[in-house]
Amino acid sequence: MSRLRLNMMMSLDGFVAGPEQGPENPFGIGGMQLNEWLLPLRAFRELHGEEGGEVNASTPFVEGWFENIGATVMGRNMFGGGPGPWGADPWTGYWGEDPPYHHPVFVLTHHAREPLEMQGGTTFRFVTEGIESALEQAREAAGGKDVSLGGGARAVQQYLAAGLLDDILISLVPVLLGSGARLFDDLGAARPRLEQVEAVEAPGVTHIRYRVLG
Amino acid sequence: MSRLRLNMMMSLDGFVAGPEQGPENPFGIGGMQLNEWLLPLRAFRELHGEEGGEVNASTPFVEGWFENIGATVMGRNMFGGGPGPWGADPWTGYWGEDPPYHHPVFVLTHHAREPLEMQGGTTFRFVTEGIESALEQAREAAGGKDVSLGGGARAVQQYLAAGLLDDILISLVPVLLGSGARLFDDLGAARPRLEQVEAVEAPGVTHIRYRVLG
Repeated sequence: MSRLRLNMMMSLDGFVAGPEQGPENPFGIGGMQLNEWLLPLRAFRELHGEEGGEVNASTPFVEGWFENIGATVMGRNMFGGGPGPWGADPWTGYWGEDPPYHHPVFVLTHHAREPLEMQGGTTFRFVTEGIESALEQAREAAGGKDVSLGGGARAVQQYLAAGLLDDILISLVPVLLGSGARLFDDLGAARPRLEQVEAVEAPGVTHIRYRVLG
Repeated sequence: MSRLRLNMMMSLDGFVAGPEQGPENPFGIGGMQLNEWLLPLRAFRELHGEEGGEVNASTPFVEGWFENIGATVMGRNMFGGGPGPWGADPWTGYWGEDPPYHHPVFVLTHHAREPLEMQGGTTFRFVTEGIESALEQAREAAGGKDVSLGGGARAVQQYLAAGLLDDILISLVPVLLGSGARLFDDLGAARPRLEQVEAVEAPGVTHIRYRVLG
């Protein structure tokens, strides 16, 4: 059974991005602190075609991010380019010509757009029919593999409240951002039950896996 | 040097109590789920004079709660009895005749009150001069030992924002409360820097220690 999996770096006060996200500040003010544990890792540098780097207790988690993933779903805010219509010279994502996905990525949006084929196997497909349709299309594209929920916070909240999210990996970072995009917020009446599967201490971060019991 | 230490059980969405806290519901609606990992432990049952119980990876953390603690500071909401004047038949706390503190407890309040001596060495002292005075009095009473910050969320936020908190132990529970008292909130302009000291997986909870760097 193909599962919907979420991996997020979160501050101790619950934020996955600082305030005022935008093209020049994709993680928001202060949000780059969420990545500090990640940047020195060999497993991360390899994703970007760089050599060298550290191996530590975080390594298996970073290596696992894309393991058995056949497609990604993400919200419009995560894809970026601001809200509203796409315009004449549309935004092509934060990740350059060769995004690190290498599989189909389904972007939730209210504004229809032709598929955008990037280098390295990443194609952005824009879904206007809502979260369930996006997940269905992603599952079909994944061909039996799992689907990754890429974020941002609002997309995660919708999938979680709808009972569609199966696995959560939180990389909890020892930082207080104070404001920004809070991951676990606006749940409405939904109270998904969680099971703690695994928790691992690593330099500058704690990785905790949860299974959503529904 | 006597340190100000905080131990809190927190939901994955950041709450240390559910909504609608009161005498019949000291942890708020759903808040008892924060304790589920704790109740079967021998180390917890012993605090309440009960026998038997489990020993697991949580045990050293629970045993450490009161280790080298000479006094406690807590907010009025944590002490309970509602806001406002104390009245003719004043509230004596949530903990019965013999509270588990066994040392002086300084309660932050806007309403003066005579000290309240309980059994077993716990005396509640009511401080109307603010958080710094309460901490100073607690340090003096602790006689060189550490001071415990007992909560609730608003008292913690004030000590954290003022740069007076030294050590934080978060016991992160795999539950989503959805609303209630959020621990790391309303920081204002303060951005205390944290260092992750230790993280330990235990059944149904993850314990993470942080040092506040200031």
